[in-house]
Amino acid sequence: MGSLVPKCLGGPSGDGRNTPQLADGGPAEMLLLRPIMRGPWGLQRTPRLAAVAWGSHPQVCAAWTPSRTYDTWSAGHGSRRRKVMAVGALLGLGASLAYGDHRRQASEAEPNAEAAPEVPYPTFTRQEVGQHHNLAERVWVTYGSEVFDITDFVELHPGGKGKILLAAGGALEPFWAMYAVHGQEHVLEILQGYKVGELSPEESSQPAQGDPYSGDPPRHPALKVNSLKPFNAEPPAELLTENYLTPNQLFFKRNHLPVPAVDPASYRLEVEGPGGRVLVLSLPELKRRFPKHEVTVTLQCAGNRRSEMSRVRQVKGLEWGVAAISTARWGGVWLRDVLAHAGYREEEEEEAGERHVCFEGLDKDLSGAAYGASIPYRMAMGRGAEVLLAYEMNGEELPQDHGYPLRVVVPGVVGARNVKWLGRISVSREESPSHWQQNDYKGFSPAVDWETVDFTTAPAIQELPVQSAITDPAPGATVPPRELTVKGYAWSGGGRGVVRVDVSLDGGRTWHVAELMGEEQRPGRAWAWRLWRLTAPVPPDRMELDIVCKAVDTSYNVQPDTVEPIWNLRGVLSNAWHRVRVTVAKD
Amino acid sequence: MGSLVPKCLGGPSGDGRNTPQLADGGPAEMLLLRPIMRGPWGLQRTPRLAAVAWGSHPQVCAAWTPSRTYDTWSAGHGSRRRKVMAVGALLGLGASLAYGDHRRQASEAEPNAEAAPEVPYPTFTRQEVGQHHNLAERVWVTYGSEVFDITDFVELHPGGKGKILLAAGGALEPFWAMYAVHGQEHVLEILQGYKVGELSPEESSQPAQGDPYSGDPPRHPALKVNSLKPFNAEPPAELLTENYLTPNQLFFKRNHLPVPAVDPASYRLEVEGPGGRVLVLSLPELKRRFPKHEVTVTLQCAGNRRSEMSRVRQVKGLEWGVAAISTARWGGVWLRDVLAHAGYREEEEEEAGERHVCFEGLDKDLSGAAYGASIPYRMAMGRGAEVLLAYEMNGEELPQDHGYPLRVVVPGVVGARNVKWLGRISVSREESPSHWQQNDYKGFSPAVDWETVDFTTAPAIQELPVQSAITDPAPGATVPPRELTVKGYAWSGGGRGVVRVDVSLDGGRTWHVAELMGEEQRPGRAWAWRLWRLTAPVPPDRMELDIVCKAVDTSYNVQPDTVEPIWNLRGVLSNAWHRVRVTVAKD
Repeated sequence: MGSLVPKCLGGPSGDGRNTPQLADGGPAEMLLLRPIMRGPWGLQRTPRLAAVAWGSHPQVCAAWTPSRTYDTWSAGHGSRRRKVMAVGALLGLGASLAYGDHRRQASEAEPNAEAAPEVPYPTFTRQEVGQHHNLAERVWVTYGSEVFDITDFVELHPGGKGKILLAAGGALEPFWAMYAVHGQEHVLEILQGYKVGELSPEESSQPAQGDPYSGDPPRHPALKVNSLKPFNAEPPAELLTENYLTPNQLFFKRNHLPVPAVDPASYRLEVEGPGGRVLVLSLPELKRRFPKHEVTVTLQCAGNRRSEMSRVRQVKGLEWGVAAISTARWGGVWLRDVLAHAGYREEEEEEAGERHVCFEGLDKDLSGAAYGASIPYRMAMGRGAEVLLAYEMNGEELPQDHGYPLRVVVPGVVGARNVKWLGRISVSREESPSHWQQNDYKGFSPAVDWETVDFTTAPAIQELPVQSAITDPAPGATVPPRELTVKGYAWSGGGRGVVRVDVSLDGGRTWHVAELMGEEQRPGRAWAWRLWRLTAPVPPDRMELDIVCKAVDTSYNVQPDTVEPIWNLRGVLSNAWHRVRVTVAKD
Repeated sequence: MGSLVPKCLGGPSGDGRNTPQLADGGPAEMLLLRPIMRGPWGLQRTPRLAAVAWGSHPQVCAAWTPSRTYDTWSAGHGSRRRKVMAVGALLGLGASLAYGDHRRQASEAEPNAEAAPEVPYPTFTRQEVGQHHNLAERVWVTYGSEVFDITDFVELHPGGKGKILLAAGGALEPFWAMYAVHGQEHVLEILQGYKVGELSPEESSQPAQGDPYSGDPPRHPALKVNSLKPFNAEPPAELLTENYLTPNQLFFKRNHLPVPAVDPASYRLEVEGPGGRVLVLSLPELKRRFPKHEVTVTLQCAGNRRSEMSRVRQVKGLEWGVAAISTARWGGVWLRDVLAHAGYREEEEEEAGERHVCFEGLDKDLSGAAYGASIPYRMAMGRGAEVLLAYEMNGEELPQDHGYPLRVVVPGVVGARNVKWLGRISVSREESPSHWQQNDYKGFSPAVDWETVDFTTAPAIQELPVQSAITDPAPGATVPPRELTVKGYAWSGGGRGVVRVDVSLDGGRTWHVAELMGEEQRPGRAWAWRLWRLTAPVPPDRMELDIVCKAVDTSYNVQPDTVEPIWNLRGVLSNAWHRVRVTVAKD
């Protein structure tokens, strides 16, 4: 094992970097094969400790151990290890990874796979590492006490080249603290493939990082967490449709970055006017100057039901269930009133080409770049447009997780454009330059993978397609033998109403029409979902039921039958028929 | 055989009522089982004569024989015959029938099935028949020399109760001349089930009817005719996508009634203003008073691709292939300009409820009722709305079949609302009362049949869902062994653009992205189709290919995988993946 045996042999160390006690190396290969049980978000503590305890080794670290330590250790087994490196994100943006898809790509691109020495790595100072801060000088980074040359990975980084170069010449830890998704087995495996050295011993201790998420608010314990940092969570499906308006505490939360702490007294909204003049509005000014409007709007994450796509083939993204969708009554001012005040006008025809209203949030990444998104100008400024700058949610002040003190609510449009903690509005001939507008939240053919994807070829998702899902019974539940009630939601983008929900108890062979509930929808402005319910006799002599639902909207668009043909590498737009298999209780 | 042996034993008789020479009764049951080979429209002459010739009987009637004579004859076999009567339309509106669905319904409702006498029918005068002209007096009709009590069928009439009552107390022939679809085997079978007598011999000859379709224009011989009267035809699929703009002669034709002869000099468009005042515009006034606009718009019949639904289960409607869709450059004036001139204004919010713009055609049925349809007011009057009153089609005067001299073109909306030969426009709190708005052109669950359908429960189709189809190669074609080019069209309703067309050569297991052709689409106003093409290697060692296409629109709606789950009794909205199976030539 030589010099690559973990240095910490005695449990939690004093420098905050906990490493495991596995000096005998006994179960190392086992741990290497599956050192971390993947949970719905990043690192999971308990299963990890269980894995370490496997093999009855008595010297288990009691504290939580970052997974890198295992991989550092396992890398010591030599170059064979590095040959099977998988590729994923090093600085990816809140996403899990297309592990399998990248394996080949990685092994082709990975320069050290064959040439890796079996001898101890050379050591470098932080200053030496810092000289490799761009592609010309090659890109080096540190993680813990190790040094990596990630130059050949830069173009492969799922989170984008720009993001990964932020860490060039320095430590990965501050970025990974921001995007906790990186703390996963395969990310660390990838990194190991690029190892070129060690930090000199006197420099290897990493100063403790401040947690950028320490200001995040408390959350409701019922939420199912998909990612802690940034915080992403959905309510339990069976709670979701208990209320037509989702209680604020249970409304799904989809953050891309730490929740910014905004002081309402000093808060200002900036609106760039047509001539470049910037309109600056305080919160009281905004509320006083423009009439208040309220609209009930359903928001849905583009990744809602992504976990069903991952079951077909692993996709990159948070493993959402069916509840990354919620409905609230939003109160605020019309965006068009504010834009008109800033000097913009409704145009009959955009003869000079399309324009876009760009939003910037106050949530920022380590480079200072804000979360951003844009919507077409016509969507914001059309007569009767109901895009809201909202300061209320279900009659309460906007909660911190939902954009306090001001957010955008774009009815009928994917959640990602509903920018929270709104800081700035501008109008541009181009869409928002934000990563999330340009290189994320777009749909592709199942034929496109991370090797072939060209994000410029697909439009940014705006209006979402027709959607429905079963929230009750839960998958695997046991249902009564004679009569069954099935519940769920249905919604469509673009203000298109729900015409009908068909429910099948036999996998789609025969259908029932569900009863629609909740508020009536306004023609052409059906911004909020319908809940639905079907009570039907259970077919006799059935041990199991394959319950299926599918909705039809006012454009008579329908949901596709199956997931495979709409599979896409980003796992968005997952709107195939929803299926729930249950067991029938004995009569 | 008794008195029910056909009276005509010697070929064409002098009274115009030809009956077959089958005095020996030999092949009678055979003929009865399938006396008419069904063609794509109404009655087919040649197959019928062939059927008569079956069995080498020398005394075949040389002239074309209306099918009723067979059924009259076969009815003589007694009540057993009538017990298996099927139900369909007697005065239905340009539609074939859900034969199977109605069988049970008919046998339940059919009052004569058990009580039918084995003795000769009584005779009646036309005056006696005329006394049964409403439900209270019971509803009798004549067809040829026979008398029928159709009271119990009135509610079952697929074309509606109102339409069938138009014939009460009189002859069916004038109506059936209008709706030639009635000349089908099962319609005549149904009718026989209601027979109650014969016309007295001196009154049984029916005066020749004038043909309401005699004024119809000549048509291009390449068109595939689905119905002659009214005229409904589509171009061959392989010709359809040869041009981005469909030549007027080949543009699919969907008439509901005879083509009206409109004198352009005396033509007037009537527009009901808000106070009831009627704006009357001559064609020159219309052209002079309002600016001319041109828009390229794809029109699609709600029944496009219906034949694929009928292969699942018979539906009611014309058996359209994939070419009941075409694209033209339409020239005319904005509807909103005309409505504004009449006194209407764009409204920010329709607080008093939705309104509708109703159109009436100059094409009328025998009762004088015009073809009619409506669209939501906001669709007509919204800022930037591009609903056209068109007088030009691809730079030419509007052809007679396409609404000369003026028609409505509603971009993004089902063909049925694009009223031709426009006579009158009004604005109403209610949708058009027309049959075609209220009781046709709506979508239902596959669980709904003609027994359970309630047309008030579904919205009238307006925007159509995303659609695509393969036009080349043709089904059953032999394709070259190495490389294949597949062509087709893709389109979506509501101004939603085509983002992508995926094509599979292996039934949907793997996909290629097709190249989009034709004009770029305007964001939010993608009124016209994209043509597409894919050239791909033919998978080796394949004898057959199962070619599939599916499109994605800008709302990221997709086409459903299969036809069965979107099957509906009217056969509309048929937009499942299009499949074409071909044979691969030997290399």
